[in-house]
Amino acid sequence: MSWLSISKSSPFSLANIPFGIISTAKSTAHVPAIAIGDYALDLSVFASSGGFSPLTDFARHLDVFQQPTLNAFAALGRPVHRQVREYLQNVLRDDTSYPQVLKNNAVLQKEALLPLSEVTNHLPLQIGDYTDFYAGLNHAYNLGVILRGPDNALQPNYKHLPVGYHGRASSVVVSGTPIRRPNGQILTNPSATPKVPVFSPSKRLDIELELAAFVSRPNQMGEPVPIDEAEDHIFGLVLMNDWSARDIQAWEYVPLGPFCAKNFATTITPWVVLLDALEPFRAPGLEPGDRESLFPYLREKRAVNAYDIPLEFELKTAQGSSTVVSRSNAKNLLFSFPQMLAHHTITGCNMNPGDLLGSGTISGTESGAEGSLVEQTRGKNPITLADGSQRIFLEDGDTAILRGTAGEEGSYVGFGDCVGTILPAHVV
Amino acid sequence: MSWLSISKSSPFSLANIPFGIISTAKSTAHVPAIAIGDYALDLSVFASSGGFSPLTDFARHLDVFQQPTLNAFAALGRPVHRQVREYLQNVLRDDTSYPQVLKNNAVLQKEALLPLSEVTNHLPLQIGDYTDFYAGLNHAYNLGVILRGPDNALQPNYKHLPVGYHGRASSVVVSGTPIRRPNGQILTNPSATPKVPVFSPSKRLDIELELAAFVSRPNQMGEPVPIDEAEDHIFGLVLMNDWSARDIQAWEYVPLGPFCAKNFATTITPWVVLLDALEPFRAPGLEPGDRESLFPYLREKRAVNAYDIPLEFELKTAQGSSTVVSRSNAKNLLFSFPQMLAHHTITGCNMNPGDLLGSGTISGTESGAEGSLVEQTRGKNPITLADGSQRIFLEDGDTAILRGTAGEEGSYVGFGDCVGTILPAHVV
Repeated sequence: MSWLSISKSSPFSLANIPFGIISTAKSTAHVPAIAIGDYALDLSVFASSGGFSPLTDFARHLDVFQQPTLNAFAALGRPVHRQVREYLQNVLRDDTSYPQVLKNNAVLQKEALLPLSEVTNHLPLQIGDYTDFYAGLNHAYNLGVILRGPDNALQPNYKHLPVGYHGRASSVVVSGTPIRRPNGQILTNPSATPKVPVFSPSKRLDIELELAAFVSRPNQMGEPVPIDEAEDHIFGLVLMNDWSARDIQAWEYVPLGPFCAKNFATTITPWVVLLDALEPFRAPGLEPGDRESLFPYLREKRAVNAYDIPLEFELKTAQGSSTVVSRSNAKNLLFSFPQMLAHHTITGCNMNPGDLLGSGTISGTESGAEGSLVEQTRGKNPITLADGSQRIFLEDGDTAILRGTAGEEGSYVGFGDCVGTILPAHVV
Repeated sequence: MSWLSISKSSPFSLANIPFGIISTAKSTAHVPAIAIGDYALDLSVFASSGGFSPLTDFARHLDVFQQPTLNAFAALGRPVHRQVREYLQNVLRDDTSYPQVLKNNAVLQKEALLPLSEVTNHLPLQIGDYTDFYAGLNHAYNLGVILRGPDNALQPNYKHLPVGYHGRASSVVVSGTPIRRPNGQILTNPSATPKVPVFSPSKRLDIELELAAFVSRPNQMGEPVPIDEAEDHIFGLVLMNDWSARDIQAWEYVPLGPFCAKNFATTITPWVVLLDALEPFRAPGLEPGDRESLFPYLREKRAVNAYDIPLEFELKTAQGSSTVVSRSNAKNLLFSFPQMLAHHTITGCNMNPGDLLGSGTISGTESGAEGSLVEQTRGKNPITLADGSQRIFLEDGDTAILRGTAGEEGSYVGFGDCVGTILPAHVV
């Protein structure tokens, strides 16, 4: 398919073309790029070397690829993203209409095609506000059972609106960033009276397997985004690990929600997969998006509003042993990102390019499909790893790796690895 | 005291010198300024005209006053803010050491001293993340009584840590911005089974009277701010109205906290009052900041950790009638801003210059000292305004004005008015 040699197992096939921000040892400037197979195509060099010359419509926008973030590119809107992605697919195809641009241009190949192993990834967009939803029904149910029992597991509002909360934007980091185990207040004996916490490193450090969407188009304060336009306000998706200190969370979160238990770090994959790349994998979510029980502002034209993206969570110990702890699928969502965006703005909240919306933890219903350790272990039943060691929560030196890859060998559309290694807590 | 004529009732006496961002009809560029009496001193013009020449230490930082926000100035740190404020006080004093700078410089006075009535205020800093705390004990108690009764009004964690949650940064607006009444999901009949909401304009639109602090110095992810250094990470304070749609909030907030009920708008005063200006008004808060029951990371060297700042909430109807609905005082806080900052970062959350920390609603204990309408009316007992009309919550056309002014006539240190007028909801 491509004149470039692309491994059949690469998440970055010609069908993908995700956008990110990179730097290299030689050039520390942050520049836009796409990932293709084992390479990054530096769009800054590509654009300034005339790579987009055949795309005459795009000429006036070329400066977006000389920026240190993708915010300006995102703000151009979906028709432009689509045009650029399709053009780049064409340039990279074996039967490209533009062989002179890159296929037969050894000089530009040498300057612009960089081995992924030699580039450093950065946050793809500058994140203004970060919001985390709770649209993974199975996760919400599993947690509800742990906290309140099966009869009251889901709150009465749960199926009427995408429950969400504002998160911390400053501590969203790119895959690979080490994660320091947090210290905090923990109630070790919840049944004692009075309730008096201890101060300690978190002993219940967990992952949350999520997808997240970047906003492209803004809306004005006081002007909600109509549901039929919401998809065109989304730039693309990444995988996300919403690290959570369950013991700190349990003590702090009443009555205003999670705070310090989650604001110490949130990890995302560096390559933004455009919605157009995911369109072939559209699949039914947990309930149809056009169901009558929804208020019109949440009712979608298309009932089929999720994506069939197999997801997995692998745990690698400091000793190097790897275990796939769980396998889930992005279909396990009750609300879609367009529904989340429509709800987020319904009271008038203004969104900006670069705002990030997390889906909530994506768990399946079966055992081994949980999107967090607390669901799988119930906080007490250890899982056994490949090397025979056991885990209830994460230990120092553990590396959590999330993956999400749609499609088939040779034409995978994936996110790459979402990675973080736990550093020991500071002694205080 | 000043060679400039300053009204004795001005919140911007020579003892204040708050910093903000302005533009004018003639010059639409956003530039830094201070407020002094009925004037703004344009620091962009002042700096480029040699106004800071005697302050030789500051020469290398002059570009901070050519920026459209105060983030760069804030990032310089408290010793620099102190030096600049004291220098400007000196320049404006009758017995100034630098009469040639402004007092005897009619040309610069004409260019740089602009009547406040002719300037437009903008957000003083670009806000990266906004966090709202809940440190107003009386408010937390009053709301707890309404929701859970007096015996369980405060949650077990309440006195151990400053409870807080992440808010929405994009919809923080400057005083004077009109506020659109939000539409949203509301449970009108909570006792019915099953619980089914309606979609409607909020009928319980409320104010929350708060102080808020801007962060100046950053900290790295994973590195908490020690309590003894926390005050020097704070640039200064503003007044804040955390608009709240109580009916939308009641339905949505379980289990992850307030979301769309508050993210439609938050209003702040435009002038940042530096902590140094408030130091003479330091007063005991609701409990000493050094109390033994606190973990060391929250224990302050100085037990006296609040400020004596009388606060008021005035309601002006569309017909022009004004009523002071409540009077409170900033002493009514259980935790100080340094404690909030120390707690916010204890798990490793990184802060940036321009981050905004709200105190939570500041209510007194007595009747007429409530910082929100829901506390005063319990959502059912109307208050009577000066023109005889009644209110339980805000009506369209109502203007909420918050004020906070410390000190005495002739040397007030105040925030000015925090104003917002309610526009009718969009018809959907």
